[in-house]
Amino acid sequence: MGIALGPNRYGKAETRVVRVTRDGDVHRVKDLNVSVALSGDMTEVHLRGDNAAVLPTDTQKNTVFALARKHGIASAEEFALLLARHFTGSQPTIRTARVSVEEYAWDRIPVTGHSFVRRGQEVRTARVVHSEEGAHVVSGVRDLTVLNSTGSEFRGYIRDEYTTLPEAADRILATDVHAEWRHLTPEGDWDASHAEVRRILLETFAGTYSRSLQQTLYAMGRRVLEERPEICEVRLAMPNKHHFVVDLEPFGMDNPNEVFFAADRPYGLIEGTVLRDDAPAAEEAWQ
Amino acid sequence: MGIALGPNRYGKAETRVVRVTRDGDVHRVKDLNVSVALSGDMTEVHLRGDNAAVLPTDTQKNTVFALARKHGIASAEEFALLLARHFTGSQPTIRTARVSVEEYAWDRIPVTGHSFVRRGQEVRTARVVHSEEGAHVVSGVRDLTVLNSTGSEFRGYIRDEYTTLPEAADRILATDVHAEWRHLTPEGDWDASHAEVRRILLETFAGTYSRSLQQTLYAMGRRVLEERPEICEVRLAMPNKHHFVVDLEPFGMDNPNEVFFAADRPYGLIEGTVLRDDAPAAEEAWQ
Amino acid sequence: MGIALGPNRYGKAETRVVRVTRDGDVHRVKDLNVSVALSGDMTEVHLRGDNAAVLPTDTQKNTVFALARKHGIASAEEFALLLARHFTGSQPTIRTARVSVEEYAWDRIPVTGHSFVRRGQEVRTARVVHSEEGAHVVSGVRDLTVLNSTGSEFRGYIRDEYTTLPEAADRILATDVHAEWRHLTPEGDWDASHAEVRRILLETFAGTYSRSLQQTLYAMGRRVLEERPEICEVRLAMPNKHHFVVDLEPFGMDNPNEVFFAADRPYGLIEGTVLRDDAPAAEEAWQ
Amino acid sequence: MGIALGPNRYGKAETRVVRVTRDGDVHRVKDLNVSVALSGDMTEVHLRGDNAAVLPTDTQKNTVFALARKHGIASAEEFALLLARHFTGSQPTIRTARVSVEEYAWDRIPVTGHSFVRRGQEVRTARVVHSEEGAHVVSGVRDLTVLNSTGSEFRGYIRDEYTTLPEAADRILATDVHAEWRHLTPEGDWDASHAEVRRILLETFAGTYSRSLQQTLYAMGRRVLEERPEICEVRLAMPNKHHFVVDLEPFGMDNPNEVFFAADRPYGLIEGTVLRDDAPAAEEAWQ
Repeated sequence: MGIALGPNRYGKAETRVVRVTRDGDVHRVKDLNVSVALSGDMTEVHLRGDNAAVLPTDTQKNTVFALARKHGIASAEEFALLLARHFTGSQPTIRTARVSVEEYAWDRIPVTGHSFVRRGQEVRTARVVHSEEGAHVVSGVRDLTVLNSTGSEFRGYIRDEYTTLPEAADRILATDVHAEWRHLTPEGDWDASHAEVRRILLETFAGTYSRSLQQTLYAMGRRVLEERPEICEVRLAMPNKHHFVVDLEPFGMDNPNEVFFAADRPYGLIEGTVLRDDAPAAEEAWQ
Repeated sequence: MGIALGPNRYGKAETRVVRVTRDGDVHRVKDLNVSVALSGDMTEVHLRGDNAAVLPTDTQKNTVFALARKHGIASAEEFALLLARHFTGSQPTIRTARVSVEEYAWDRIPVTGHSFVRRGQEVRTARVVHSEEGAHVVSGVRDLTVLNSTGSEFRGYIRDEYTTLPEAADRILATDVHAEWRHLTPEGDWDASHAEVRRILLETFAGTYSRSLQQTLYAMGRRVLEERPEICEVRLAMPNKHHFVVDLEPFGMDNPNEVFFAADRPYGLIEGTVLRDDAPAAEEAWQ
Repeated sequence: MGIALGPNRYGKAETRVVRVTRDGDVHRVKDLNVSVALSGDMTEVHLRGDNAAVLPTDTQKNTVFALARKHGIASAEEFALLLARHFTGSQPTIRTARVSVEEYAWDRIPVTGHSFVRRGQEVRTARVVHSEEGAHVVSGVRDLTVLNSTGSEFRGYIRDEYTTLPEAADRILATDVHAEWRHLTPEGDWDASHAEVRRILLETFAGTYSRSLQQTLYAMGRRVLEERPEICEVRLAMPNKHHFVVDLEPFGMDNPNEVFFAADRPYGLIEGTVLRDDAPAAEEAWQ
Repeated sequence: MGIALGPNRYGKAETRVVRVTRDGDVHRVKDLNVSVALSGDMTEVHLRGDNAAVLPTDTQKNTVFALARKHGIASAEEFALLLARHFTGSQPTIRTARVSVEEYAWDRIPVTGHSFVRRGQEVRTARVVHSEEGAHVVSGVRDLTVLNSTGSEFRGYIRDEYTTLPEAADRILATDVHAEWRHLTPEGDWDASHAEVRRILLETFAGTYSRSLQQTLYAMGRRVLEERPEICEVRLAMPNKHHFVVDLEPFGMDNPNEVFFAADRPYGLIEGTVLRDDAPAAEEAWQ
């Protein structure tokens, strides 16, 4: 029996860079959390501790800051592309660079041009995987929390010896949308595209009469693909955040879906992919 | 030497109640996290395990749900008052009830009347302390994250043998505002008052040229008291979320306050109280 | 109406210092999270932004590192005393210094003298409040998670219109112990004292047949005071981490307290103080 | 262009089950967090909201509790196998079941036979993927935090225009070990195997003079494979938790690797796989 090194990567995770751009008294702020992961032939460092092929993660961090200064941050996707191309182009030992970005949004406080308030809990994401075969761009959102207070049922499911759940003709449907979508090409109007996909996700969640969270998930992915030709694949993970109707009968009250207990754990978790049937295979985009 | 029981309380913490109100097809949602803490003469239960004076925390939880059904949730403050009055009025052994509420805000998704998206990370808070002396109402906000990208300096401070900090003529000032404010009376238009205080906090943070975070904090509290006669005391805790200017000189670049590293820890922490000089003493409101 | 500055403080929070001491090839490690809060007459900085009386939090951080080098870290309490005395002694404007410490424990990996593994989730705490009246030392522990799988009941409580809880003759009792204890004087064998108090807390939790969590809490505090003459006051906060017996009847099974669902929220929260009747009053020790 | 449903799964996540076993007055406790994910032909539910092939996540939760009662919990792996086999065997629509388990360890408090204290922050993990091709078992550990206070260097790496890091001849090496290892077959003495792998990971981390974290990671994986014939693949993810030597020169002090600042973010992240060259391919085990 021999022992071998399998897939591996290394990089600096969670460099928190804030970039201010000044247009006279009006400032703009980009607030990013950047994670880099590089791979190539790293046999020597793993087997013998020879670092000759290693670009230190400290240098990767410096590069994030330096390129933010030199080129600015046009968008999460653009900055990730810039970094990924830099890393793969700079060293022959780096064959693939993955750059993942979280972006935190800020709204203006309309008193000065330089005052901001964090918009929400939701996070915009982007990741780029760049190798000699080219670049893949995946945009996304996470912790986009949504709720329909009606327009959702759950019926007609399998019943077995461990079934106790009664069918629900009208329930709350609530979830944290975690969605990522793959672009066909590494060019795009990233901000406009992101805003539209987010709008579609929200509107489809809201407008779909739901017989199951799976159906809602698929409808959301499908609508994105139907309306956005630049996108070829959508992956969604959506917890079913249970809101239980509280039994108030012991207190002589009915409860016509008015008072709910919002539970933490356990929760349902629905994960699914929706894709164009002509989408080029690209598992490496999601690694 | 004898041993005595000192101050104590007990209650159900973090009951997550969601209340839906239907006006035809248009729903409203209140999403609260309610914590109850009761106190009175609890000697017997502590010393002998005699529960005759104990209202079980399970019953407290039931009460939260039942009163949400019976009376609805007009506002965080109103619901906390309702609960606190219920508990102190229901059992002679309960002398003081403290009800703390966190409220999570939802915006409409304008497709249906029953679809919502969580607004932000910030949380609205309310707490009521009710005893035979009456009720105190404290409203608040936490995790209201704000940033000024200029308009802040820090100079003229003490220098000692451990000083290395250079003076800053222009820096980023960023913080998570945690603020609570005490009302003079337990009556009020709670939603309107809260919206106004929040606006004042944001505008004062934005509009104050800052020589220190203490100065900004005090200005925020003072403005609330000047503009809102219903409020007599403001307590603020504001971390100084450091944004360090990255040194890009090793790479042959300057950095005119454009690229910052957002640090996690350590952070400064500034805490202060601002109050009307005729504010009635009420330490019990904050217990 | 005038507006006044009330109680206030400022300081550097969460400085993460790791101190290594070498005894030949055998190293010792102290891993601390140090938070400093200073107060005095801070009117000028709040009202006018004049920083002449402000010791920058950056300098406070430097001081933590410098004193760790100069004096080492004998114990959390000793280091907190050292820092608090330094700050109050160094500047006339600093009247009171509070130093709070969290300590993370490491066990040896018995292969080398310099290899360690983090012991547990539990955190040792210490805080010192030092002013011209002297120093108070409060030691503690938090997130010490314990569970009795029997030996606990809950009966004989108040029943009202919202009661649904059945009495329990045998239940799981589980909690995260958060305890702090005040020392009579600022001198002590801190490590030995802490180890003994921790042992007493664990053994009393385990050995007490519990009719309520309040009774267990009081017994824990009382035993500490009975056995440790250096301690005059104990404050405990203990959540009742509910473990519900799962109803398996729908599946034709009984459940003689064998299968439990561990719930997150809501939870009971029991808080109480136990003190020697000759304990000198010292609310400032806990501020 | 057509639109298709891609890979998908659904299930109940994070069912928190505590199982007590009584041997007279001596109890044993198993404390698990169980997540189930099922897949098969789920087209109808996604495209049309027809739930006929859906086993509700509520039923999955019930099944966790019922099987814990019926069969007990011998080990995390054994219980995951039991559940996965149950789900795939119970419904023709369920082709693959993945069961992931986190286990929290408890030590005895040696006063009674029924008293326990949570051992540590570290979590034992197990996951089973069961389909008609058979079952894969992957065991693991996460948040196993370790530190070497010497015996680590970092030199000889790539230098480019963004390099500022000085070479380190002696540094702290600290990480949170996240490791998972795949078993050759779904039979084993799971507890004994886990204990031995954990011991090997700790001892190899401690005993390896480290020229890079990659080298340490590979050594850890290799040693597991060399000593444990039941294991064919190890995957490790280890953050480089930076401990920076504090510059004390401004205060007239040296710092011979005695005082460190433990940073949060950014951090290095090293991920790698080590495998036997005769390990059967099984990407599905890790999905």
